[in-house]
Amino acid sequence: MTAEFDLIGRYFRPLAGPEGLRLLDDAACISPTAGHDLIITKDLLVETVHFRSEDDPRSVARKALGVNLSDLAAKGAVPRSYFLGLSLPPSRDEAWIAGFAEGLADGQQNFGLALAGGDTTRNPDYIVISVTALGEVASGTMLGRGGAKAGDTIYVSGSLGDAALGLKCLSGELPHDSYLVDRYLYPQPRLSLGKGLVGLASACADISDGLVADTGHICKASNVGAVIYLDKLPLSAAASHLVRAANAPWQSVYAGGDDYELVFTAPADKAEDIAALSKHCAVTITAVGSIKAGRDIRLVDMNGELLQTDAMGYDHFE
Amino acid sequence: MTAEFDLIGRYFRPLAGPEGLRLLDDAACISPTAGHDLIITKDLLVETVHFRSEDDPRSVARKALGVNLSDLAAKGAVPRSYFLGLSLPPSRDEAWIAGFAEGLADGQQNFGLALAGGDTTRNPDYIVISVTALGEVASGTMLGRGGAKAGDTIYVSGSLGDAALGLKCLSGELPHDSYLVDRYLYPQPRLSLGKGLVGLASACADISDGLVADTGHICKASNVGAVIYLDKLPLSAAASHLVRAANAPWQSVYAGGDDYELVFTAPADKAEDIAALSKHCAVTITAVGSIKAGRDIRLVDMNGELLQTDAMGYDHFE
Repeated sequence: MTAEFDLIGRYFRPLAGPEGLRLLDDAACISPTAGHDLIITKDLLVETVHFRSEDDPRSVARKALGVNLSDLAAKGAVPRSYFLGLSLPPSRDEAWIAGFAEGLADGQQNFGLALAGGDTTRNPDYIVISVTALGEVASGTMLGRGGAKAGDTIYVSGSLGDAALGLKCLSGELPHDSYLVDRYLYPQPRLSLGKGLVGLASACADISDGLVADTGHICKASNVGAVIYLDKLPLSAAASHLVRAANAPWQSVYAGGDDYELVFTAPADKAEDIAALSKHCAVTITAVGSIKAGRDIRLVDMNGELLQTDAMGYDHFE
Repeated sequence: MTAEFDLIGRYFRPLAGPEGLRLLDDAACISPTAGHDLIITKDLLVETVHFRSEDDPRSVARKALGVNLSDLAAKGAVPRSYFLGLSLPPSRDEAWIAGFAEGLADGQQNFGLALAGGDTTRNPDYIVISVTALGEVASGTMLGRGGAKAGDTIYVSGSLGDAALGLKCLSGELPHDSYLVDRYLYPQPRLSLGKGLVGLASACADISDGLVADTGHICKASNVGAVIYLDKLPLSAAASHLVRAANAPWQSVYAGGDDYELVFTAPADKAEDIAALSKHCAVTITAVGSIKAGRDIRLVDMNGELLQTDAMGYDHFE
């Protein structure tokens, strides 16, 4: 294997923005644009846990960027730069690194940010990727999770369950569907929608653990409860087709992670603004329930019955 | 194992500062103090590569903070907050996490910073820790690596080789010495020294890859060469004792990583200020060589001979 600093020079230096100091330093100097706050988020991705060993390194890179940028989208932030920690087992050759760097370059171009620094190291066994992403919002306007109020409507962007179903396609549990597989491999952070929600949404989160779990995070931070109606959840044509079949994997829709859509709340008088934003961003927005007093999250099925479930979302340590 | 969010609540929420939003959110909102730049650095630590499986989780936590804060020290920055990515194999129980959190709390108190966010996830095999540390410097004053000029003196703080020798003690290659072992397990970032070097040093780096390698990083970024004299390298009493013995492990002194001392350069007219700073910070500072035109780094031994060596520092991918 080529030496660490040669690899950095060959594959990662071309990705560095001006803040990255040509990656010749161990730290970056960052100042927010005047009148703005920096928003910082960090996600770890582990081979076999968050992506499959056989996944194309381009998709792994896109996913590593995408899941972090989805956190920025949920804050209403515009991406700016990122730091990359990459821990690689000896079995990964230079071709893997080249593909990974290509995926990063592609993501940087799509999402408008540049590499600012990081660290590369050996790993005895599995790939671990740690991305710290930085974005900006106008000072004091960050979307939070703690502002939902009883009576607010709960909205979601796009369609739900696609990524979880796509993973089942890849594992052979469901027939192959390239739309669903792409939704799993190449998450699209809802950046323009998130930015547009500043001043409209009372609370916002991205759906990485599943709709019910992530709505739960909003409820916990806001000290409220929620009711969500299963028959209102937006499905893609591909997911709808699968869900109509026997043994429909509904659970993928309300508890599947990895969709990286946004769930947010807003008072009733914002409904028109939200419809306009949906048109402006060309992203479907669907009302799926409402915020209630109390602390519990109720999921109501097609027959108006309370759905009992013990699989409400993804928990890494359960 | 307890659920992810319970673990976060029990062990990591008490570590969160105001910017951490009680760890109920996926991102933090950070604005530098007026008139300051943010300095951001990120290091990955991997079990078996950067620490031993049997190491006390308190020392692992201290090391994870320490190596990042050492990067901030080399920039002249004052620590402010950090983000933690923790990937844990199923074999690690809650007692390990409790010890790790205790080490973080201790480090936070010692170094003056608080947890601002992060991510926890499962790992199939080994512990991986990713810390992103944030510090501040007065705007435009960050110490860099690119300012060394021919004629500048090269200085190092503290003593060299202790950590590499301490690791050899732990592996049984050398007799046990608790001073050396502590230097390996509990690196002390040179934060007050780094802060004091702003305006004095022309270039600065922390010694994580070994003196020769890290001086090399300064030379590369500054487009200069260097000469370093082996007989000037500062040794602790414990290291000196070992080096005087037969088969002296001199290589640990000039090429051993993990000391987390600072190597810096300064023009001759700063010598008095540097002596005063050494006294003020109660840290030994030793002139070990000088910056030259050219690109090569020459290491001169006790007899004035050029030392030929092919082990100039640590490279993760070689």
